[in-house]
Amino acid sequence: MAVYTEPTDEELARLLAGWGLSAPLAFKGIAEGVENSNFFLQTAEGRYILTIYEKRVEQSDLPFFLGVTSAVADSGLPAARPVMPLDGTLTQDLNCKAVALVSFLDGVSAKRPNAAQTRAVGEALARMHLALSGSELTRKNDLGPADWPALWAPLLAAAEQLEAGSAALINEDCAAIAKGWPVALPSGIIHADLFPDNVLFVGNQVTGLIDFYFACSDFLAYDLAVMLNAWCFEPMGREFNMVLGQALLRGYQSVRPLMAPEIVALPLLARGAALRFYLTRLSDWIRPTDGALVRKKDPRDYSARLAFHRAVTSARDYGLEI
Amino acid sequence: MAVYTEPTDEELARLLAGWGLSAPLAFKGIAEGVENSNFFLQTAEGRYILTIYEKRVEQSDLPFFLGVTSAVADSGLPAARPVMPLDGTLTQDLNCKAVALVSFLDGVSAKRPNAAQTRAVGEALARMHLALSGSELTRKNDLGPADWPALWAPLLAAAEQLEAGSAALINEDCAAIAKGWPVALPSGIIHADLFPDNVLFVGNQVTGLIDFYFACSDFLAYDLAVMLNAWCFEPMGREFNMVLGQALLRGYQSVRPLMAPEIVALPLLARGAALRFYLTRLSDWIRPTDGALVRKKDPRDYSARLAFHRAVTSARDYGLEI
Repeated sequence: MAVYTEPTDEELARLLAGWGLSAPLAFKGIAEGVENSNFFLQTAEGRYILTIYEKRVEQSDLPFFLGVTSAVADSGLPAARPVMPLDGTLTQDLNCKAVALVSFLDGVSAKRPNAAQTRAVGEALARMHLALSGSELTRKNDLGPADWPALWAPLLAAAEQLEAGSAALINEDCAAIAKGWPVALPSGIIHADLFPDNVLFVGNQVTGLIDFYFACSDFLAYDLAVMLNAWCFEPMGREFNMVLGQALLRGYQSVRPLMAPEIVALPLLARGAALRFYLTRLSDWIRPTDGALVRKKDPRDYSARLAFHRAVTSARDYGLEI
Repeated sequence: MAVYTEPTDEELARLLAGWGLSAPLAFKGIAEGVENSNFFLQTAEGRYILTIYEKRVEQSDLPFFLGVTSAVADSGLPAARPVMPLDGTLTQDLNCKAVALVSFLDGVSAKRPNAAQTRAVGEALARMHLALSGSELTRKNDLGPADWPALWAPLLAAAEQLEAGSAALINEDCAAIAKGWPVALPSGIIHADLFPDNVLFVGNQVTGLIDFYFACSDFLAYDLAVMLNAWCFEPMGREFNMVLGQALLRGYQSVRPLMAPEIVALPLLARGAALRFYLTRLSDWIRPTDGALVRKKDPRDYSARLAFHRAVTSARDYGLEI
């Protein structure tokens, strides 16, 4: 959450001309997004979010990410619609960084989502899965189970230092997950990072699904597993909130009922999702800050979730009603 | 430029109710402002900037700052209009921090202001001085010449370390400024920090004068002296730009012609203003960052300006046409 790159007046004028937009009425850096620079832009033509892509996003992935958000918007779900430059490309260039423009979505993200919001986002996730089921876009999940051992190896000492005894537990998680990971489940494009930060609401209504920068091709139920971790644990005590779990799963199943193999796999998928966020958070946690303006997230939120998932015996423990 | 405090959903709902506003349609932290947390807020009623005041602003000064911006707006100049809470107070409270709401102003600040913009802001400054001349609000300038020796004393070694030979030069500046500082000049409420960051434009038209958090009672010409420093030097080479100096002074004088004693005092006021920003920048420069998200500004921009002002012989050297 920071602004890394500020276009000059001339650069901004050139970019706006490239999209066929008139002079800026407002242009404000906003404290949002995964290591990109984001700006609220208003012109006579409308309101937009302008994004300058910094290091973390691979430019070659942009057609996928922007194609997915566009496809979601086309399906009638509330997603940001990319504005194409007049020259027929997808993004413009600013000193060798890609710059994209998308429509502005009303709504605010919920800091502590309630059950109605959590149910609504479950429904929206299922609708998104269905809407994207015909898409030909594909992208490998580069933070999937095959990538975890290499992520984990350099973090052992740090994990142990942060929480004594944790290295052995995480080793067990890695082994158990590798052993039990499903081979085949209903698959398609998933968001893979649908945290409350990435959903906008007006009241309890979902008005925006945003930040598709981890979207990829994977098991649909893994998206739900990510969300069980991201939406259904208490922020302070880190306990699982059964009411929210029920709400999420009810919402999802009201649109796309889970199949039996997905229900069986859910506990391991949820444990895997917790491991994935534990590993990337720990990796960020120990990285020197080099004056970076990113607020680090505590990996211990996810070691606590892992502990919960280890003890789970069936999807019922997440609130699934079967 | 950062967001230090994020209200929870409940806190935001309470604040909005306190101003009689309906649910948020957009609420985004923006990367702007002196060390305050600023948010773009949109509701059915309109667009606003919500500010949570952090350490640097004294809460007892808020009636002055908000009173000044309100008076400027009342005069027809483009300034943010504070929205008063329904309970008749000026600000609301969020965990012992004051929170204010002001109307949103269209416009973007110029990164490299052109001559037309610089002339327009000179005019706007003069209009602001006239508009505030009847105000009964007063506030001592706590970064005035009387305050500089105490600011300077702990910085000598740091100055010398940053630029060898500079401590002696700054000592001379302090002495010369103390000796020559005017006793009486036309006075009133000044902005005291009208940098390009704090002025919004659409095209070359001024659409916003913002951030009155250094406003105080002082010599009107000192405001112009601050702006000669802030608007009329080249960003890279740090040379004085005579075209911009002329534009600023022409714009100002087209509304409020300077009096003879102000013209005589201008070089020393400009040198004093450069010293004031040199001292506060140097003080910020050497302060440990404690994970702060503030991008530090280079004090050497202002030692270079001081060198220019030392060599000035009359206001003509700033482009004043007499």
